[in-house]
Amino acid sequence: MDDIRPIIWNEDDKELILIDQRKLPNKLEYFTCKTYKDVVVAIKDMVVRGAPAIGVSAAYGMALAELENSDDEFICRAYKELKLTRPTAVNLFWALDKCMDSFKKGVNLLDEAKKIHEEDIQLCKKIGELGQTLFDDGDVILTHCNAGALATSAYGTALSAIRFAKYAGKNVSVISDETRPRLQGAKLTCFELHYEGIPTTAISDNTAGFLMKQGKIDKIIVGADRILSDYHVFNKIGTYSLAILAKYHNIPFYVAAPYSTFDFENTVEDIEIEQRSAEEVMYVDGVRIVAEGVPVINYAFDCTPPELITAIITEDKIIYPNKK
Amino acid sequence: MDDIRPIIWNEDDKELILIDQRKLPNKLEYFTCKTYKDVVVAIKDMVVRGAPAIGVSAAYGMALAELENSDDEFICRAYKELKLTRPTAVNLFWALDKCMDSFKKGVNLLDEAKKIHEEDIQLCKKIGELGQTLFDDGDVILTHCNAGALATSAYGTALSAIRFAKYAGKNVSVISDETRPRLQGAKLTCFELHYEGIPTTAISDNTAGFLMKQGKIDKIIVGADRILSDYHVFNKIGTYSLAILAKYHNIPFYVAAPYSTFDFENTVEDIEIEQRSAEEVMYVDGVRIVAEGVPVINYAFDCTPPELITAIITEDKIIYPNKK
Repeated sequence: MDDIRPIIWNEDDKELILIDQRKLPNKLEYFTCKTYKDVVVAIKDMVVRGAPAIGVSAAYGMALAELENSDDEFICRAYKELKLTRPTAVNLFWALDKCMDSFKKGVNLLDEAKKIHEEDIQLCKKIGELGQTLFDDGDVILTHCNAGALATSAYGTALSAIRFAKYAGKNVSVISDETRPRLQGAKLTCFELHYEGIPTTAISDNTAGFLMKQGKIDKIIVGADRILSDYHVFNKIGTYSLAILAKYHNIPFYVAAPYSTFDFENTVEDIEIEQRSAEEVMYVDGVRIVAEGVPVINYAFDCTPPELITAIITEDKIIYPNKK
Repeated sequence: MDDIRPIIWNEDDKELILIDQRKLPNKLEYFTCKTYKDVVVAIKDMVVRGAPAIGVSAAYGMALAELENSDDEFICRAYKELKLTRPTAVNLFWALDKCMDSFKKGVNLLDEAKKIHEEDIQLCKKIGELGQTLFDDGDVILTHCNAGALATSAYGTALSAIRFAKYAGKNVSVISDETRPRLQGAKLTCFELHYEGIPTTAISDNTAGFLMKQGKIDKIIVGADRILSDYHVFNKIGTYSLAILAKYHNIPFYVAAPYSTFDFENTVEDIEIEQRSAEEVMYVDGVRIVAEGVPVINYAFDCTPPELITAIITEDKIIYPNKK
């Protein structure tokens, strides 16, 4: 198996092995967690990132805690410490609460973690199998950010559809925009697709529109952070611009995400878009690029309305927001 | 005078003083040229950049040569060395040929250089005075790349229109996108506008569309590298995407450039878009961001069709490509 797995459980040595994503794309190194405290460090320091991958890692953190000491007090402490690692990752809290419930019911936490891990793999696989049907042999597919294996347990969401197109024997290739400010496209998507032998070309975010004009992009696929019941899609900043450019050039625009991404309670007015630290734009890997004293607007996400979306791929069906 | 002047002639000491643009935005330092060979280094090493600014600097290089040694042979050598500094800057060749002609006619080269310099200042001033009429008090104006004082002798082209709006007492503010891959927006535009007290905010290129959707951008203005007689505009990569986003959100999209930018000979099919080094995308200030082995597409420019352009501002009139 030479596909990217950011989370590996080593049964022989009872340890969690994570791809150290801080070192990508320049080095593929692993970070080994022998105790739950190692997992706390791994999540806090972003050795592992991507909401599903964080959730699975945290579950293994609980399992490591139980292997160390199965006293109630110790498990509660592990639970609390793991919970404080990242402020907004919904999957983190979900996975930890699930483990805590299981612990109270006497379920073995390593079994629980493995189950959560396996379920995530199956979910991504189903999205990939369904999503790949939208791609044709020879397609050049643009993607944004990293909705890939590195953000999940395996395959990813948007990148799962691309992977499964390749597994189905279709010659697809990818254009990955770099995705400023955090450069997940350049640093992660290019790395993981190239690693698996899927032809991938990097571009600056500014280049996408001109490639569309030249007819060099057949389809676009992205992931999602939240999807409302009316199919407004919240995703990495820049997604909205790409969707407008796709519409203008008559290029299909797909979103891939599991059902757990759907928010059936809120409307578009309810959602406040997170603004992240100005430093993300001011600096690139520690090098200052914006003059001192100049303020920055740094929205982490944007919102794409359903009229710009051709289809949404979930684990059990493809939704066409504009087909009545 | 506290406006940015990248090129200053010091009459007392007979030397050319350039803003060292390699150090921006972190340091405002000057690079002094006492001989034509210093000017060769300054242009080659990009102490000075921007086609008009390069042309003016080269003219002063010829003047410095004549002050050193007015023999035909020496002047010819200076001419040839200055010509080899940059391969594609049209203004460089134009200014050098003009100086060579003047030299043959016995015109003093320092006078010639000062004249070229002053003409460039006046040109930019006229563009600014005309362009500022398109802006209203309170406007938030998005710009791309650096069509500013730093690329010319003073004021700039697109940024000249913004400066003269301020001089006319209008409270305008600017959103500058960073303009990957070379980051001229972040590094130069933010620096020069902030330096002159024009409120300026930096964003990643991905953020422009979402700000338009939120109604936070009133107008857009950019420069141009080449304008065809049918008003196709070639400018920094990303301009085309911005023009589509502007159209979608019904935001005026302006281009500011002198008449010398017009190409009345070629059609859009004739123009080959320069592809620059992959390193510009792969690295940011020496830090590698794209995995090894991943190819890059790096167009330096794109082409925006006239139907996306509200107006083109030149030094003597405003052209409306879509008004018949």
